[in-house]
Amino acid sequence: MNHQAIALGAALDPASIAIVGASDNKNKVGGRPLDYLKRFGYAGRVYPVNPSRSVVQGQPCFPDIATLPEVPDLAIVAVAGSAVLEAVQACASKGIRAAIILSSGFGETGDLGRRQQAEIAEAAAAAGMRLIGPNSQGLANFSSGAVANFSTMFTQLPPQDGPVAIVSQSGATSAALYTLLRLNGVGVRYVLATGNEADVTVSELALAVAADPAIKLIVVYAESLRDADMLARAAAAAKDRGIPLLMLKAGRSAAGAAAAASHTGALINEDGVVDAFFQRHAIWRATELLDIVNIAPLYLKEIRPRGRNLVVVSNSGSSCVMCADFADGLGLPMAALSATTRGRAGRALASFATCSNPIDVATALLGDSRALGAVLQALADDEAGDLYLISLPVAGDGYDLEQLAEDIASFEKTTGRTVAVSATTAATQEPFRRRGLVTFGSERQALAALDQFTRHLALTASAQAQAQAPAHQRRPLLLPPGTSAFLSEAQSMAVLADAGLPMAAHQVCFDADQAVSAWRGMGAAVAIKACSAELPHKSEHGLVHLNVDGEAAVRRAFEACRQGVQALDIAWDGAIVAKMARGRRELAIGGKMDPVFGPVIMVSDGGKYIEAMPDFVLLIPPFDAAAARAAIGALRVAPLFAGVRGEPPMDVDAICAAMVTVASIMQQNADTVASIDLNPVIVGCAGDGIVIADALIERRLPDGSAAHAFLPLNAVTEEVAQ
Amino acid sequence: MNHQAIALGAALDPASIAIVGASDNKNKVGGRPLDYLKRFGYAGRVYPVNPSRSVVQGQPCFPDIATLPEVPDLAIVAVAGSAVLEAVQACASKGIRAAIILSSGFGETGDLGRRQQAEIAEAAAAAGMRLIGPNSQGLANFSSGAVANFSTMFTQLPPQDGPVAIVSQSGATSAALYTLLRLNGVGVRYVLATGNEADVTVSELALAVAADPAIKLIVVYAESLRDADMLARAAAAAKDRGIPLLMLKAGRSAAGAAAAASHTGALINEDGVVDAFFQRHAIWRATELLDIVNIAPLYLKEIRPRGRNLVVVSNSGSSCVMCADFADGLGLPMAALSATTRGRAGRALASFATCSNPIDVATALLGDSRALGAVLQALADDEAGDLYLISLPVAGDGYDLEQLAEDIASFEKTTGRTVAVSATTAATQEPFRRRGLVTFGSERQALAALDQFTRHLALTASAQAQAQAPAHQRRPLLLPPGTSAFLSEAQSMAVLADAGLPMAAHQVCFDADQAVSAWRGMGAAVAIKACSAELPHKSEHGLVHLNVDGEAAVRRAFEACRQGVQALDIAWDGAIVAKMARGRRELAIGGKMDPVFGPVIMVSDGGKYIEAMPDFVLLIPPFDAAAARAAIGALRVAPLFAGVRGEPPMDVDAICAAMVTVASIMQQNADTVASIDLNPVIVGCAGDGIVIADALIERRLPDGSAAHAFLPLNAVTEEVAQ
Repeated sequence: MNHQAIALGAALDPASIAIVGASDNKNKVGGRPLDYLKRFGYAGRVYPVNPSRSVVQGQPCFPDIATLPEVPDLAIVAVAGSAVLEAVQACASKGIRAAIILSSGFGETGDLGRRQQAEIAEAAAAAGMRLIGPNSQGLANFSSGAVANFSTMFTQLPPQDGPVAIVSQSGATSAALYTLLRLNGVGVRYVLATGNEADVTVSELALAVAADPAIKLIVVYAESLRDADMLARAAAAAKDRGIPLLMLKAGRSAAGAAAAASHTGALINEDGVVDAFFQRHAIWRATELLDIVNIAPLYLKEIRPRGRNLVVVSNSGSSCVMCADFADGLGLPMAALSATTRGRAGRALASFATCSNPIDVATALLGDSRALGAVLQALADDEAGDLYLISLPVAGDGYDLEQLAEDIASFEKTTGRTVAVSATTAATQEPFRRRGLVTFGSERQALAALDQFTRHLALTASAQAQAQAPAHQRRPLLLPPGTSAFLSEAQSMAVLADAGLPMAAHQVCFDADQAVSAWRGMGAAVAIKACSAELPHKSEHGLVHLNVDGEAAVRRAFEACRQGVQALDIAWDGAIVAKMARGRRELAIGGKMDPVFGPVIMVSDGGKYIEAMPDFVLLIPPFDAAAARAAIGALRVAPLFAGVRGEPPMDVDAICAAMVTVASIMQQNADTVASIDLNPVIVGCAGDGIVIADALIERRLPDGSAAHAFLPLNAVTEEVAQ
Repeated sequence: MNHQAIALGAALDPASIAIVGASDNKNKVGGRPLDYLKRFGYAGRVYPVNPSRSVVQGQPCFPDIATLPEVPDLAIVAVAGSAVLEAVQACASKGIRAAIILSSGFGETGDLGRRQQAEIAEAAAAAGMRLIGPNSQGLANFSSGAVANFSTMFTQLPPQDGPVAIVSQSGATSAALYTLLRLNGVGVRYVLATGNEADVTVSELALAVAADPAIKLIVVYAESLRDADMLARAAAAAKDRGIPLLMLKAGRSAAGAAAAASHTGALINEDGVVDAFFQRHAIWRATELLDIVNIAPLYLKEIRPRGRNLVVVSNSGSSCVMCADFADGLGLPMAALSATTRGRAGRALASFATCSNPIDVATALLGDSRALGAVLQALADDEAGDLYLISLPVAGDGYDLEQLAEDIASFEKTTGRTVAVSATTAATQEPFRRRGLVTFGSERQALAALDQFTRHLALTASAQAQAQAPAHQRRPLLLPPGTSAFLSEAQSMAVLADAGLPMAAHQVCFDADQAVSAWRGMGAAVAIKACSAELPHKSEHGLVHLNVDGEAAVRRAFEACRQGVQALDIAWDGAIVAKMARGRRELAIGGKMDPVFGPVIMVSDGGKYIEAMPDFVLLIPPFDAAAARAAIGALRVAPLFAGVRGEPPMDVDAICAAMVTVASIMQQNADTVASIDLNPVIVGCAGDGIVIADALIERRLPDGSAAHAFLPLNAVTEEVAQ
């Protein structure tokens, strides 16, 4: 662990804390942490600092940082305006290794605030001191009572140390998560808010809390990400320890991103890339706080199901129907129970009860509170189920909830399987919750939680496989010398063919005779396209001629290209005569450098309408062919790959291989290549394989990012005859 | 009001009730209603009937129905097995007009039970007596205390008469809805469960409660629908009174439908048709009970917003960001507030607060509890907003929730606008709920409710417009005589051309010379297709030849058709020589008779892959061109209609006109036509309009329904050159 991480560890679990701007008023930002440290049993040493008082909240107060009797592990800065910089400098001089700036009025207010914030950050960095904030609500650790945090919610709902760490850019959201988790009966150890993140980010704090062996679940809220590598490290650390990482990344929409920018001056991330990055690193992307809160108890069970086969048992026939609908909508298969199981379950129930899955126990539990236990016994002996929802919407007189809860808890304990209970009211939920059963207020919530849980497990296994995939070693691309933003099509095709991609057979021709000879050599209709590094979008200028056949036509098309380039007054790098590729579908494969997340690979349906009707997926390299295959399986066009209406299947292996190749090219040439476009990629060709009919490489510009985003697609789409 | 409806009205509000099978045990089905009638203050006359007792639960008991001193308005039947039929016969003989059969063991158990149920229903029908059930939980009316219902939930949560009617096939779900609504503070008047629906259905009860002027919201649960006309009447009655109708139709999925069939022996409805029917009649289709329960208070406000423009105010910047994301996801536009408003709002707040929309009031409310009121005052004077979400996730010491709630309530009252509040805990919600403000536990729930509410209002307005659209009067189709299931393509084309649809130019040819002459007459490439009423799917037999040009080719294609039909040994109705239509896209338009919902119209993207990648919408006629336009706007392919990548727009009017024509043909020829398929419909042709290149009419078979469903599409797709 390096010096920086050690400082952060000390900030999370400090032996001593100074409070600069300590106040007697417990409702002031400078008063509340002092109150909380006492109230929540902090056993370390506390040093209030305030030049105008000798005692604050009954504790001896120091006039300044310099006079403290020791170097505290952590300083809380709760002064305003320019006093913040002075306080930070004083802390740095004292040798304090970490400070939390609770004060606001910096980066979130505009240019002046940003400059002041930068100055503060520089002062801290120069002394090797870590900064949390400014505009932070603070850090809270309920295992030690080190609550260096001014959230009012800790007084509303009593804290209870537990296995969850909350890490948030927003103080309000950290408090909301705390509140909702506590209301759901979950203990919380850390409530950490980073505010403007002049130095320490949520990613780094997530990494830090992942090292605490008591932590079993990390939940993160962020509006903007700028340290993808650190977040990847946090995700890896969590994954290694089997700790699920759930993250709500807000600012998805344009309006949301604008609100985030005005909230904390946040950098805007490309949302689809965030999705791909999270997927790659097995971070579950939550869409609202309740998604996180409702599912937390399921994660904390530490039971991990083998699969997604669902068994539903309910005393309401209509709940059975609705659960089957919900499961279908979520893609959770109903487990195929054996005839033996169904027979045993049926015998355990009254005659009117059905014993297919969902199992409608109807009114059987009214007369016989042991009937559920008998059904569960039958289910315990059947390996077909992975997930069990016991839904009891009907309760009241005649129902022995204690016995039912006892039998369900016993089933869970004996089988080690994943069980969820659904009951309508707090009173009917209580007997189940008391026995530690994961209990929901609605069947859809329960099934959504089971679905998310198992999807996240699958994502984690897939991310693990990707992390272990062997790196592709390939020599760097040999880009032709030059300073043009784009390589010409001919250059791009040559470079990529050399890298092993299946480019269309073609020849660069500089006069019409050459073109005719190329056409003859190909023995079929050709495409004739003007070639110039200054012409990345040749279709728009009418400089692409498709299905050219016959000598006269070849000459006409060649001349049209030559004259077209001349008219545009750009460099003439000849014309490409390419064999027309024939296939059943066009795709597009691309790669680009994202300023935060690095190389991103896209695969998309193709054709001229793909911007109007988008159908694409993004992937973060490295990934293997299996991950590529899973990704393209999510395309709307995916059913065609298997072959429909009597067509043979397409060569999916070749598509995946091209994706993996583009990914490794992007990774290994990150310094020189900004983007690669393969479009169209002709698939479903007669015979096997795929053919890349056009390609474009963009050099990496000095600012380090690609000149254009994927969306709208930076397509160079041509209409290729099918 | 007819005799049947009067009987049902009396069952909902009876002056006297007999209970056949009355029991002293208040936990038995025959004991609980008697207890409830007393407990919930029923003031009518109650007659326990039980041959073995003279007093039941302290009330004088009668040995049989015949000896009752009057004819009660309603009988409750709570005896078992064959005694049910006897009880029903006795009630009928007495002249009782309505009976509820609480007993189970009939249609839901199998063939024998179904036969017994039919016998009971016939006995009642013969006497003109209405039946609720069997297998019904009963009817409950909390305005009169006429609780002829055995749900245990009424003892768990105290009833409160109110503006909601619950109508459900399932007793358990009616009780769950009751519970959840009561927990959400909503009063419920009716809790009605129909069970097996041997006679009275949820549709008819929904119609009945719509006549009660105290009812402001009707919620319905059903697993199977068989009386579409009655449901349409209920929807119309509700619409006329401005009562929203929300319905959870379960059994959407195959697994759900199977569970429903085993639950109540339910008929399986085609789910997409249910969606279309609900849309046509402005019934909001809920997907889970909580959707209904959470939104109920918004409907009950009886404030109806003019539009969907959203204003969000929060004391958490991160809530602002998340709300902007949620709104974007739901398609709720953020209202464009005027500069004046934003300026006034800004001045009302501390300097760090932004005053764009969402409005982040940050910590301003801590120091100044009047700041929110001042912001709302500024908003009141701006007409840009329709919907207002005030989200206060941060609360606790320093927040004057009473003042904030007062100011929000005053804003709602003064402006008459739609307001929702979001707060995290029950305690922080309380001051808002106490003032009658619609309050949610999460921002996403609140925004989802505002979204549903305004979409439902728009749906209602659209359904109103459709109901007022003039009916198309057209003469019946003149179908050629015959008994074949399908008309030949030539016959179909002729009939539909006569009905005004734009069929492709074509000629039916019986020898090769005719075909050559037809080709010459068309002056372009043609399609040559074998024609036979016995050959609805000619593509599959290779009997479609496209892009045929030149005399020799025409002769070859014609001969191939003739020989192909000969080889199949079916009737030869010649070959169709049709001008190849050229366009930019193929669609398909179809109509079919649904056994429950009557004529259904489909419009779909076309082409050979449309079964693999479905893209279609369904509509219930009658509808006008505006509704057709809205429907095709939901197709994935819709962006192409406007023209993309420099293409001219397509003739959407012509597409809509064809849809309306097919709809009116299906309606006016319901006795003779089972289905119509127009496929492909070529759109984006040079010049305007559309061309229908192939058509197929299916006669209505004696069983009254179409031979095939829409899904998978009953396509006769041909590949037409584009």
